Amino acid sequence: MNYDVKDIKGAPQGRLKIEWAGRFMPVLNSIKKKFAREKPLRGLRISACLHVTSETGNLMEALKLGGAEVRLTASNPLSTQDDVAAAMAKYLQLPVFAIKGEDNATYYRHINKALDHHPQITLDDGADLVSTLHSRRRPLLKNVLGGTEETTTGVIRLRSMAAKGVLAYPIIAVNDAKTKHLFDNRYGTGQSTIDGILRATNILLAGLHFVVAGYGWCGRGVAMRAKGAGAKVIICEVDPLRALEAVMDGFEVMPIESAASIGDVFVTVTGDKAVLTKKHFRRMKEGAIIANSGHFNVEIDIAALASLAKRKRRVREFVEEYELRDGRKIFLLGEGRLINLAAAEGHPAMVMDMSFANQALSVLYLSMKGQTLAKEVHGVPQKIDEQIARLKLRSMGVRIDRLTAEQKHYLEAWEEGT
Amino acid sequence: MNYDVKDIKGAPQGRLKIEWAGRFMPVLNSIKKKFAREKPLRGLRISACLHVTSETGNLMEALKLGGAEVRLTASNPLSTQDDVAAAMAKYLQLPVFAIKGEDNATYYRHINKALDHHPQITLDDGADLVSTLHSRRRPLLKNVLGGTEETTTGVIRLRSMAAKGVLAYPIIAVNDAKTKHLFDNRYGTGQSTIDGILRATNILLAGLHFVVAGYGWCGRGVAMRAKGAGAKVIICEVDPLRALEAVMDGFEVMPIESAASIGDVFVTVTGDKAVLTKKHFRRMKEGAIIANSGHFNVEIDIAALASLAKRKRRVREFVEEYELRDGRKIFLLGEGRLINLAAAEGHPAMVMDMSFANQALSVLYLSMKGQTLAKEVHGVPQKIDEQIARLKLRSMGVRIDRLTAEQKHYLEAWEEGT
Amino acid sequence: MNYDVKDIKGAPQGRLKIEWAGRFMPVLNSIKKKFAREKPLRGLRISACLHVTSETGNLMEALKLGGAEVRLTASNPLSTQDDVAAAMAKYLQLPVFAIKGEDNATYYRHINKALDHHPQITLDDGADLVSTLHSRRRPLLKNVLGGTEETTTGVIRLRSMAAKGVLAYPIIAVNDAKTKHLFDNRYGTGQSTIDGILRATNILLAGLHFVVAGYGWCGRGVAMRAKGAGAKVIICEVDPLRALEAVMDGFEVMPIESAASIGDVFVTVTGDKAVLTKKHFRRMKEGAIIANSGHFNVEIDIAALASLAKRKRRVREFVEEYELRDGRKIFLLGEGRLINLAAAEGHPAMVMDMSFANQALSVLYLSMKGQTLAKEVHGVPQKIDEQIARLKLRSMGVRIDRLTAEQKHYLEAWEEGT
Amino acid sequence: MNYDVKDIKGAPQGRLKIEWAGRFMPVLNSIKKKFAREKPLRGLRISACLHVTSETGNLMEALKLGGAEVRLTASNPLSTQDDVAAAMAKYLQLPVFAIKGEDNATYYRHINKALDHHPQITLDDGADLVSTLHSRRRPLLKNVLGGTEETTTGVIRLRSMAAKGVLAYPIIAVNDAKTKHLFDNRYGTGQSTIDGILRATNILLAGLHFVVAGYGWCGRGVAMRAKGAGAKVIICEVDPLRALEAVMDGFEVMPIESAASIGDVFVTVTGDKAVLTKKHFRRMKEGAIIANSGHFNVEIDIAALASLAKRKRRVREFVEEYELRDGRKIFLLGEGRLINLAAAEGHPAMVMDMSFANQALSVLYLSMKGQTLAKEVHGVPQKIDEQIARLKLRSMGVRIDRLTAEQKHYLEAWEEGT
Repeated sequence: MNYDVKDIKGAPQGRLKIEWAGRFMPVLNSIKKKFAREKPLRGLRISACLHVTSETGNLMEALKLGGAEVRLTASNPLSTQDDVAAAMAKYLQLPVFAIKGEDNATYYRHINKALDHHPQITLDDGADLVSTLHSRRRPLLKNVLGGTEETTTGVIRLRSMAAKGVLAYPIIAVNDAKTKHLFDNRYGTGQSTIDGILRATNILLAGLHFVVAGYGWCGRGVAMRAKGAGAKVIICEVDPLRALEAVMDGFEVMPIESAASIGDVFVTVTGDKAVLTKKHFRRMKEGAIIANSGHFNVEIDIAALASLAKRKRRVREFVEEYELRDGRKIFLLGEGRLINLAAAEGHPAMVMDMSFANQALSVLYLSMKGQTLAKEVHGVPQKIDEQIARLKLRSMGVRIDRLTAEQKHYLEAWEEGT
Repeated sequence: MNYDVKDIKGAPQGRLKIEWAGRFMPVLNSIKKKFAREKPLRGLRISACLHVTSETGNLMEALKLGGAEVRLTASNPLSTQDDVAAAMAKYLQLPVFAIKGEDNATYYRHINKALDHHPQITLDDGADLVSTLHSRRRPLLKNVLGGTEETTTGVIRLRSMAAKGVLAYPIIAVNDAKTKHLFDNRYGTGQSTIDGILRATNILLAGLHFVVAGYGWCGRGVAMRAKGAGAKVIICEVDPLRALEAVMDGFEVMPIESAASIGDVFVTVTGDKAVLTKKHFRRMKEGAIIANSGHFNVEIDIAALASLAKRKRRVREFVEEYELRDGRKIFLLGEGRLINLAAAEGHPAMVMDMSFANQALSVLYLSMKGQTLAKEVHGVPQKIDEQIARLKLRSMGVRIDRLTAEQKHYLEAWEEGT
Repeated sequence: MNYDVKDIKGAPQGRLKIEWAGRFMPVLNSIKKKFAREKPLRGLRISACLHVTSETGNLMEALKLGGAEVRLTASNPLSTQDDVAAAMAKYLQLPVFAIKGEDNATYYRHINKALDHHPQITLDDGADLVSTLHSRRRPLLKNVLGGTEETTTGVIRLRSMAAKGVLAYPIIAVNDAKTKHLFDNRYGTGQSTIDGILRATNILLAGLHFVVAGYGWCGRGVAMRAKGAGAKVIICEVDPLRALEAVMDGFEVMPIESAASIGDVFVTVTGDKAVLTKKHFRRMKEGAIIANSGHFNVEIDIAALASLAKRKRRVREFVEEYELRDGRKIFLLGEGRLINLAAAEGHPAMVMDMSFANQALSVLYLSMKGQTLAKEVHGVPQKIDEQIARLKLRSMGVRIDRLTAEQKHYLEAWEEGT
Repeated sequence: MNYDVKDIKGAPQGRLKIEWAGRFMPVLNSIKKKFAREKPLRGLRISACLHVTSETGNLMEALKLGGAEVRLTASNPLSTQDDVAAAMAKYLQLPVFAIKGEDNATYYRHINKALDHHPQITLDDGADLVSTLHSRRRPLLKNVLGGTEETTTGVIRLRSMAAKGVLAYPIIAVNDAKTKHLFDNRYGTGQSTIDGILRATNILLAGLHFVVAGYGWCGRGVAMRAKGAGAKVIICEVDPLRALEAVMDGFEVMPIESAASIGDVFVTVTGDKAVLTKKHFRRMKEGAIIANSGHFNVEIDIAALASLAKRKRRVREFVEEYELRDGRKIFLLGEGRLINLAAAEGHPAMVMDMSFANQALSVLYLSMKGQTLAKEVHGVPQKIDEQIARLKLRSMGVRIDRLTAEQKHYLEAWEEGT
């Protein structure tokens, strides 16, 4: 079979992980059952570029149960769980191309392997596969019905492509589903970023100054959890509305240059580049810890940090010590890559459940409606969004109210007043 | 002069209140200065139907300084601060028609007084003035350039009118400005609802079960502050997405019928009617306290409560005791009207600052662009929204970052990837 | 009858207040029932110096039902609720000497009136009655079996007396009961201090810098609630252990001189004097708001503030504006007296319930054991403390676990190990 | 040399860990410097039974720098970090007897090895070494000047020994130092317990029902952090005072039998045995996760769980799946041992810093005063406690206030009143 994983012998261990994640994915499980019964994706060729994790294993299984032919490559060289990749290759018979720590050349070779599948549907997380398809693999574009994109960063890139008129097929921004970004980005990134930092460092957060650059959904998730762990959180923002929300939420807000000399821990979650640079490193305290939880490892200017350092060494598994020429030490976590994936296990399955239910149902939607959609970035249909929320609540045993006829009427009327 | 206030002798006291509120309205103050200098509203006839409070006094002053001719009537019979009304009549020379506790007939007579002004611009809070204008005063519609609407409830009513094709002029939904609903509804309603309940009852919130019906912006503000006061908060919702957010925010979520027998305090903030009805009162605990913080006093079915009671008496200034036939007592606060206005002082000036800055700048915008706008409900232009946020941050001494050219370019590009 | 209240005609209104408070005092209610049945205090002469509030009305009723002859005077000139005083005089036939706003001479005249009763038991809140008794009324000391003291400040004074060997009878420090200081000081003072500040000012707390001087039980209550309201809280402390707890609880900690130039609102809760003085006023921002929630009005050096001011005026009911010579305005709340009593209604009944249950049961204990106790400050017997906690839980419908025999044995054994 | 570690080749890796922990132990570092300079423990024989972790490595180094001859054995078979043990053996020349996962026989053999040292001072964590010394090694008792005990459980056992008159030498309860139990137990156990659960399971805590049995310092730390992570926390207690605090802190409180059917995650932190037993397992939901963070693995009745199961397997590194006969699965973490040590890295160094500073200074104190102390459990002298707090604040860059002479005088006086 056609796959490239680190060690196929890890498959049994990987299967346990997929099974464990599956326990916490009740919405995707109900979709699996329906797909297995109805085979709505029969014969559909799908190329997926996603974090190769145990939750993704469950999504892959759902698509296969639906009848699709799927190939999978990693969307981030550091996030691959090698045993999970092996399990997908062995037990799901899935062509998977992903090795943790692979170099950039291998990373793109793997993307090309996935594209060799001549996909009708693409699944992407960060838009690297879509970018490759639109640049070096353009002949394949004609087969594509549509695609999905998982993350904020990818959506930003794809909107930019659409705005410039170069996007060749419709994309559903799974990230923009409420059941995705309101949950995955906030609760998922929030908890797992803290988790990654703790696994990497084992520091006590209570009492520390914890700087969060970016107060988008991810940033406020991280801020909320850092505060919940007893840290004194400082927010850095460029958007005045978000900055004002942060102030009202009880956080200190200041320019990152001011925060640089106060923070004990720094996390970047902006989706932009060069957030922490030379001028910030110069002001940091001895022992400052810096990490990134934004999609790409460009938020921290690592080259600049290296240029200031006289010595660099690994002091814990995910901690690099940079000793600056003035003797101060700065600790970079996970090589500046997504810390929740590098040092922890990414988003918990419980929250990926909804993201991936959106993926599965969006693939179904594209397979039926893709040809009728404009070559733009579309939202997930609201019906899908609400259905997923209802399924999730039910799985947690939570019941909610329904509007009475009288209440519905009232909301639609304008005659009734004071 | 033409006005109807309770007692003009309250004016000096009212002026102190307006001045006090003004201290906390730095954004509106900067607009006042600009308006006074440039007189951009010279001669414009404005009819405003707003809560007659000290903050509104500052908005009225801003419009007058801009050169407008303004009339003011109350948007809620219980929210009028009589001394503030007197101060506006006396010191601002403003025709104001508002008496705290006025009956329904007087309420609508006052609205008609405001409409006799033949307004070119309307300001509304709940859409009662607009409704009256569109039903019993239709001849006046021809003069109107546009209007603003302050609150969620009003926006719902106006969208319903627009959807039915009966809205006769463009409305700017001030409520939909981010600097309004993200702040006023959440932080303003949140704090002031709790404040109203405490002033009415002096109960200790710590350890109580506090039920919030509705998890919109107002509802989450109330929930956040009740939790911050040590209560165990239960959320009731009809929207599965909001319900799921409430769950993830750490709240218990359940149907209101289940919450009815658990709650010690109930607050309705749904914008809908008949939220607490007979079947809920029947299940409530001895001593349950119920209040409303939604716009209209229809959320609690007071008639139903009265029909269950054998006796009713006032036991504190804003507390009516309903003694049910089985001996249980239920305490209704503020006659089911907005508790933050009835028993406390409404939103703090610090947050009304932004709402009213939006009002003032939206009036200016309508005076210039009203004739070119469709007869629909429009958002506040984003530029206004951001400008207000920047002014507010500056007034609080908060500085924020700006994107570098490199960062702007990165966000617009799609080539750069992993 | 022998009493001095402002207006006896307020009695019916006061009775409603006492009744309302009584609703939230289930533990005291169960003691009332027992006292009424058993009359254990028959003929005992009690002089009480307490805040004359609706909750105290319930305590007085309990003591009278128990058979005692009680006199009551105010422990703070500003905290008296005049209608409640009238109700006690009229309906409880209680000699009560208390008028809100009475001057210092009247205050001490009233204390002497209470002492004229030749008490066998004293109840005190701040130790003014005990001090008077030990200085100007020494001949009365011979009758006294014992006394109780309600508050931290009083306990500090009494321990100082005991240490110097001048305390003439045993005192039970009700304040030291866990069911008192862990609840009343933390949850009661916490909520009601915020409540008082909001009633006095109607400011929005979210986003403000809120400085709390003192991180004792009261201070941490205030800090917790200010944080819960969205403020950024700064703690000032002299005790390194408490300061460290504040740091770990996620608060900024700094010397008060540093906080002076940052704070928007300041609250003193130290139990000491001269906490905010000239050097702090000099550094404060325009518009700073200062309040005290410690027992005596000595924490803010008001004379120093006045000496810096060129003008002073009352701008709201409980707000004095001090205009300094450089034009800055500082706002002093409630004349520097306990803000929760001055501008709000003191501790909610729900928490006073436990304090006053401790008072009632401590009086009973002193009436039986007073003569056998050393002339020192004693704690409330642990049995009383636990009994009150159990009654309170039961009244809230909360059930808890009990140790099994096996578990009890395990805790007592030391043989069982790893 | 005399030691028993898993693999001496792990030493370089272990040294990095000790060094990393040392970065976060500024108070202990200042003691190290002083000890190195003054050698106050020259020749003192110490036997220590502590968790063999990187923080302990720093304590051992401090004692050696002070001149002591130290032997170390593990206080818990699962908590040993093998590479750290190797580093202590190799670089500190320390006789260390500890292998992660050692069986019970080895565990006690190692304790005896440590006792063969004929200690003058003992350091214990859970009192297993002291128990062994008092039962099977009584002849050694005559040499012992005194000992220290680190944890609540050990202190309970030792007080029980003292009460029965069998304690043969004075013990300083390091656990009772404020700088220990207020910090280590609350912030340390709180964060690291959550950390252990997340590393073991990778579940999302937001929205879950999280049951904490025990609301002592550890329990409230765990509860606080679980709430801070978005969980709905339920507290089970036997002490009515603590239960009432939990209620007022905003938690649901109920008997553990009621909580059993609601909880998604259970953590025991009571210091007692048989907290979760057969009757609770029978009521638990499918998929319930159970963990212990109390000292001994007796809080969860694992034998009872096994007796209900038809199948048991390891599904993740620290997760055992028990499949009950009715098909429900219950997941036991870390074999019921301290989850923060089993699945995470125990208390962060930042908090162990203070615990171990207390250890080091208590050893010094015992070496000087041991012979004069009663054979009881003693507290850490308050001076030591305060000194540590001051050093810690300084290391965090936090400055605090000092009482003025006037303020000191006021606190000592009782004359000044209202």
